[in-house]
Amino acid sequence: MNGESIDSLARLREQFQKLPGIGPRSAERLAFHVLREPREFAAGLAQAILDVKDKIIHCRTCYNLTETDPCRICADPARDKGEIWVVEQPKDLMALEATGLIRGTYHVLMGHIAPLEGIEPEDLTIDGLIERVRAGSVRELVLALNPTMDGDGTALHLQSLLSEFDVSVTRPARGLAVGSHLEYATVGMLEAAIRARTRM
Amino acid sequence: MNGESIDSLARLREQFQKLPGIGPRSAERLAFHVLREPREFAAGLAQAILDVKDKIIHCRTCYNLTETDPCRICADPARDKGEIWVVEQPKDLMALEATGLIRGTYHVLMGHIAPLEGIEPEDLTIDGLIERVRAGSVRELVLALNPTMDGDGTALHLQSLLSEFDVSVTRPARGLAVGSHLEYATVGMLEAAIRARTRM
Repeated sequence: MNGESIDSLARLREQFQKLPGIGPRSAERLAFHVLREPREFAAGLAQAILDVKDKIIHCRTCYNLTETDPCRICADPARDKGEIWVVEQPKDLMALEATGLIRGTYHVLMGHIAPLEGIEPEDLTIDGLIERVRAGSVRELVLALNPTMDGDGTALHLQSLLSEFDVSVTRPARGLAVGSHLEYATVGMLEAAIRARTRM
Repeated sequence: MNGESIDSLARLREQFQKLPGIGPRSAERLAFHVLREPREFAAGLAQAILDVKDKIIHCRTCYNLTETDPCRICADPARDKGEIWVVEQPKDLMALEATGLIRGTYHVLMGHIAPLEGIEPEDLTIDGLIERVRAGSVRELVLALNPTMDGDGTALHLQSLLSEFDVSVTRPARGLAVGSHLEYATVGMLEAAIRARTRM
């Protein structure tokens, strides 16, 4: 539809098209939907978009996404601070958390080591993790990285860094399909992997 | 992903899920995309959403969506005011306009007559159309309604209302596939239909 002469409609279509998986047709359908709905709908959507940028920060302990620092998990006295689940991304944390099986806390690396993509260890939150281990009281580190080449490489790097500390380093059982991504695993697959985690 | 503990992220996901064709997975992907992009991106998207509601009105002559009244087409002295293309929806107008072949103006009915859905002639902008014809100077009305049962029924109703006026009533050639919707026609299909329009 190129005969568009309404600036604001064209602009909204362009904005929607910048979102992943939204093509020209979908963007147009979404723009017309917003136009048809009451203004409260548009206001709610617009506010939600801004809030995500304005309210969400990283927890300075575990680097999870949060609206408070420390995050709800780090601040929860019922969580076992001696057990840290190390994940690549906040989405991985959410997937694990959704199982309801984790009684420990987390550490989000914010990625994995990938020299070919220019991602070096110092680009991740590894220093923060080592600091938490050095502070003592950590008994077990579960390296819940993606079962991919980059995830495994990062796990090996962490394992060697951690060898000097008196801490048990484990990883979830390879019930996860190799090459898949943790964030897309079902709760059942994650549950199997969590329960059968092995010493590395 | 049910382990969500970040209010603003959960709220944005819910808002995205209210959009047509956006399921839970897509909504989550979109929400994380907004979170990752710079704040200017979020601000641009939010503003575009509000602008569509705040700036767009209906032209009081042709009922097209517009940011000015009269709309750009009605206000354009180069457009032939003696030729009115009658369409069901603003999207249909945009589809016709995209061909670049229309030198006349438009009239958007804002729907079609559909008694079973409770849409009666008085729910459409038919009065406004008759007024424009009564004012004189209209030579030709092209009933470019969808080639569907409802579109044809509406066209017949208009034809009988218009029979008392000295105006030529035509319709686009049935190059349009019967049962399809005008807004999804290609420019080529529309072009054939426009060029071969027949007297009704």
